[in-house]
Amino acid sequence: MKKVLIIGCGLLGSSLVRTIAKKKIAKKIFIYEKSKLNITKIKKLRLPGKIIESLREGVDNSDLIIFCTPMSEYKALILKINKFISPKTLITDIGSSKIESSKIIKKFLKKGIQWTRSHPIAGSEVSGPEFGKDNMFNNKWCILIKDKKTNLKNLKFLNTFWKKIGSKTVIMNSEKHDKIFSITSHLPHLVAYNLVKSAQDFEKKQKFNLIQYSAGGLRDFSRIAASNEIMWRDIFFDNKNNLIKAIDLFIKNLKGFKKDINYKNNKSILKKLIKTKKVRSKIIKLKQDIDAPDFGRSN
Amino acid sequence: MKKVLIIGCGLLGSSLVRTIAKKKIAKKIFIYEKSKLNITKIKKLRLPGKIIESLREGVDNSDLIIFCTPMSEYKALILKINKFISPKTLITDIGSSKIESSKIIKKFLKKGIQWTRSHPIAGSEVSGPEFGKDNMFNNKWCILIKDKKTNLKNLKFLNTFWKKIGSKTVIMNSEKHDKIFSITSHLPHLVAYNLVKSAQDFEKKQKFNLIQYSAGGLRDFSRIAASNEIMWRDIFFDNKNNLIKAIDLFIKNLKGFKKDINYKNNKSILKKLIKTKKVRSKIIKLKQDIDAPDFGRSN
Repeated sequence: MKKVLIIGCGLLGSSLVRTIAKKKIAKKIFIYEKSKLNITKIKKLRLPGKIIESLREGVDNSDLIIFCTPMSEYKALILKINKFISPKTLITDIGSSKIESSKIIKKFLKKGIQWTRSHPIAGSEVSGPEFGKDNMFNNKWCILIKDKKTNLKNLKFLNTFWKKIGSKTVIMNSEKHDKIFSITSHLPHLVAYNLVKSAQDFEKKQKFNLIQYSAGGLRDFSRIAASNEIMWRDIFFDNKNNLIKAIDLFIKNLKGFKKDINYKNNKSILKKLIKTKKVRSKIIKLKQDIDAPDFGRSN
Repeated sequence: MKKVLIIGCGLLGSSLVRTIAKKKIAKKIFIYEKSKLNITKIKKLRLPGKIIESLREGVDNSDLIIFCTPMSEYKALILKINKFISPKTLITDIGSSKIESSKIIKKFLKKGIQWTRSHPIAGSEVSGPEFGKDNMFNNKWCILIKDKKTNLKNLKFLNTFWKKIGSKTVIMNSEKHDKIFSITSHLPHLVAYNLVKSAQDFEKKQKFNLIQYSAGGLRDFSRIAASNEIMWRDIFFDNKNNLIKAIDLFIKNLKGFKKDINYKNNKSILKKLIKTKKVRSKIIKLKQDIDAPDFGRSN
């Protein structure tokens, strides 16, 4: 590839810059970033890409443009690049939900311009280019979206691209993608935020200092609940329909546990607690985590 | 101390054996363990304590007995040791909830026998003596329970004991203890179990294989939901009243988030997401976790 443009150079955008440069996947890397703070950081980090102020400079003759911004910024950016983008350039993104954002893309992107969607499953609770790294996507899943109108040549191109990056790729449609991630990612994040909010409410009402005793469980949720709020608001809103179904299922099950506890229904609760343990073994077998015990992280 | 008896030698019991021996806190350590599998493991590990088959041998002339079993085993053990325990021996335990189990102790323990309660905040998702370690309690909180009838001499003795073990100690009453840990530990565990159960239900209904995509959040909850089911059933049942209040608060807040998402109430949801992030900084400041980003654990 001759030229790639990364729009939005935070945690994942900067990781792409680093990986593309390290693996020599493109000859030239351009970076478009609207945050002045991030630009200062990128300069200080000497990331191997050219920071541009005019989008046109990055878009012109690009082989690939990767949107790495929160999804709520897609529309304004699309309206800008429509003016000079060529049908020869392929656009992709790393957004965590697909159905609603695809509607925005379809509605606002100039006809004839190609955008095929990706979702690398990588990240952390931290934001910003200083936390990016060149092995961020290594051996991680990258979902490629294939809907009815998806161009197969583009899909193949992206498949090769993400494999070069180091990802394992898998192809599915938007609908299946958004359903799966409503359960494996979006609901867990919402639940973590909600748990921390409940602890805050409790602390305020009881006037206890309880956060210092968070090592028994709350600590781990607070890490997830420290994730970027703009990104997560966008995901929650974008995958609204699936997420609301997931919330309803979660509340129904929690009420089931509440009943078990209230009536000390030993058989029912043990059956559930034993069954959920099995998922853990599956996750380790699938190499999504390691089996070494975790006693909490310490210095 | 001349003699200490550890009843139940799993993850935390075996960690106490290791620490007491390493720091020479007691001259003789006795281990009473009912699981044959654990006994085989303890022998293989050559833990520095004497495994006894008769409880009497361990109880006689002990300075300190520490119950490290699930709380549902207290009653049967109390009825056994009642026959030969002396008022000179102090009993403590490491149970995670206090009000209900104190009622069992009060009801069944022979009059005149002393039991002062402890709760070291340590552990992991794994069980069994093979995972124990001699620095398990290092710099971790240990809560000492002081209720109306608590003997101050015993409290002082335990305070010294846990400090020698390496813990930071804090004193509070049962009521406050059970309220705090219903939020910082018991609810988070229940929520983790419930999240994994919801993922299983969803997988079954949709016939999707979703566990392999768990790296986006579910993975971290599955770890917590792999904790020992007997121990957690006991805690959930024992701290029933506080836990049910915590569940109700959690569901109320989750319904609030659902409403925000359904009506795309930008201002309300951002306010909450930003506020919850603050807890994370507090936790790091209180040294309950480190601030290094977590990208998931890998080999």
